[in-house]
Amino acid sequence: MAAGSGRYAHLRADEPGDGLMNIVYKSDPQRGQQWAALLAELAPAARFHQWPDVGDPREVEYLVAWQPPDNIMQQFPNLKVLFSVGAGADQFDYASLPPHLPVVRMVEPGLIAGMVEYVTFAVLALHRDMPRYLQQQRIGIWQAHSAPTSTKRRVGVMGLGSLGEAVLQPLVALGFDCGGWSRTPRILPGVRCWSGDGQRNAFLARSDILICLLPLTASTCGMLNAELFQQLPLGAALVQVGRGAQLNHQDLIDALDNGQLSAAVLDVTAPEPLPDGHPFWQRPDIWLTPHIASQTQPESAVNALLENIRRFEAGENMVGVVNREQGY
Amino acid sequence: MAAGSGRYAHLRADEPGDGLMNIVYKSDPQRGQQWAALLAELAPAARFHQWPDVGDPREVEYLVAWQPPDNIMQQFPNLKVLFSVGAGADQFDYASLPPHLPVVRMVEPGLIAGMVEYVTFAVLALHRDMPRYLQQQRIGIWQAHSAPTSTKRRVGVMGLGSLGEAVLQPLVALGFDCGGWSRTPRILPGVRCWSGDGQRNAFLARSDILICLLPLTASTCGMLNAELFQQLPLGAALVQVGRGAQLNHQDLIDALDNGQLSAAVLDVTAPEPLPDGHPFWQRPDIWLTPHIASQTQPESAVNALLENIRRFEAGENMVGVVNREQGY
Repeated sequence: MAAGSGRYAHLRADEPGDGLMNIVYKSDPQRGQQWAALLAELAPAARFHQWPDVGDPREVEYLVAWQPPDNIMQQFPNLKVLFSVGAGADQFDYASLPPHLPVVRMVEPGLIAGMVEYVTFAVLALHRDMPRYLQQQRIGIWQAHSAPTSTKRRVGVMGLGSLGEAVLQPLVALGFDCGGWSRTPRILPGVRCWSGDGQRNAFLARSDILICLLPLTASTCGMLNAELFQQLPLGAALVQVGRGAQLNHQDLIDALDNGQLSAAVLDVTAPEPLPDGHPFWQRPDIWLTPHIASQTQPESAVNALLENIRRFEAGENMVGVVNREQGY
Repeated sequence: MAAGSGRYAHLRADEPGDGLMNIVYKSDPQRGQQWAALLAELAPAARFHQWPDVGDPREVEYLVAWQPPDNIMQQFPNLKVLFSVGAGADQFDYASLPPHLPVVRMVEPGLIAGMVEYVTFAVLALHRDMPRYLQQQRIGIWQAHSAPTSTKRRVGVMGLGSLGEAVLQPLVALGFDCGGWSRTPRILPGVRCWSGDGQRNAFLARSDILICLLPLTASTCGMLNAELFQQLPLGAALVQVGRGAQLNHQDLIDALDNGQLSAAVLDVTAPEPLPDGHPFWQRPDIWLTPHIASQTQPESAVNALLENIRRFEAGENMVGVVNREQGY
């Protein structure tokens, strides 16, 4: 993604009386420093405030947030767009937001590349029995197990948005037998696709390694449960990179204990951080990472934000606008 | 790799007086059963013996072995070709073998695909700090660390034979900054290549993740040592998928302890199995697997063997013949 210096220098700077472009950022402070430096370079006319500094709240036009402040519209009465700093936008209380306010998810190449790396890693780890080998290492056992070729390993991705589509590309290239499921029908090269509730179990029945990349909605909350696990082939494995609240923790433990599942790689849990003493911490058949699969890269994220602001101010469609009826 | 039933049915069956094609197999017995079934299907005229059964030793023409028997030529005076069942052929005592006897390494797509999966897994694991995250899991810490993009991670492959070339393809596709080093000059798409002793340190100095895929020779024995580790960037990581005797175990431990290296993924050691109580078993910054990166897949291996026998009997060049001066 090329970004010339001051590429967005024209934004609002040439409109006297309208004032500057006012952005408030409320997320990880360390990355916020990088955002400030990048904005100063790319859009020198922008005013960037890092929470809790907001400048004059009446002048705030754009809010970029992970966990949003309460009473957004009371605090920022002239807010024009609410941006999520991540790929999801389920952290916002839509009932409190005026219907005309656009809410925008982050769609940027850094976020996608990170997810592709993580899912490729997790699928290869499960395909090649790595949780078992690392456990063997801990207890001092040197023993090989045979592995099928990738052509005989059926991988299934639930959720075929920009992330789901991207993670499938290297898996297809590595020779896996790839399938995908989505709410509405999709066609993807090299991937057998299923859609809708009616085809869900047919898709699950052939997913030796299931990857959840669904957004959090009323219908996906709690869906990774005993009923779903029983639809998978015996000994299947799970990669959970969706949202924590989709997974029933006790049902996962039971499925691992009774052999319905063989292993799981989890990047998200509910709550986060996982509480002290939670059984996931100590299980060798669960690999747990602290929500790092897909981390927004400041450089590409700032470019994506500025491009969306440019589109908004030019009356064009922004990339990643949330459809409130779908919930993502 | 397509294989029609009885594809090699013609081999030797139509030469009366010359007798049948006699093969002795000496390696993992479980996989030997699969070899027997595949040979019965693909080359029904072949006589296949699984060690310690060898039939009439004077009739043995082809020996397929991992660890070879002693006094090969005394035992099998009419041996025509010695095949290694693996990608390497360093297990043979060349001084005891007559110069005219061809020694052939296994070159088959199953072996390559397995290595590609393993190296892709290991590089992504090291790139994304997974040894650190799994250690955090064990001690109950939920803490994210920032990761550079793959374009800023310099990966270096030592050894650019068929395996080295193959593992680089997905790494290039994933966006890593890829380099390679070989004894003699190579040109590979998307990979910056160095060669020879004179360019070795320039290659090492830019390898954040170093992958060893070199054969075991007099000059590579013990080469992964303190002197080499010091040429790498501080905090580099190692993927050892060459041969066990290339790695100095104490130097690796020291380099991890003093921070010169951050982590290592090892699939081979010397000796194998690793002895009880060896410090590698318990280190969270070492991921150890029992020589499973690249496992010969019986189906593709039997096809590769039969194709080489067909070539040999037709007076054509076989694939994977060891150059005894190079030692691989």
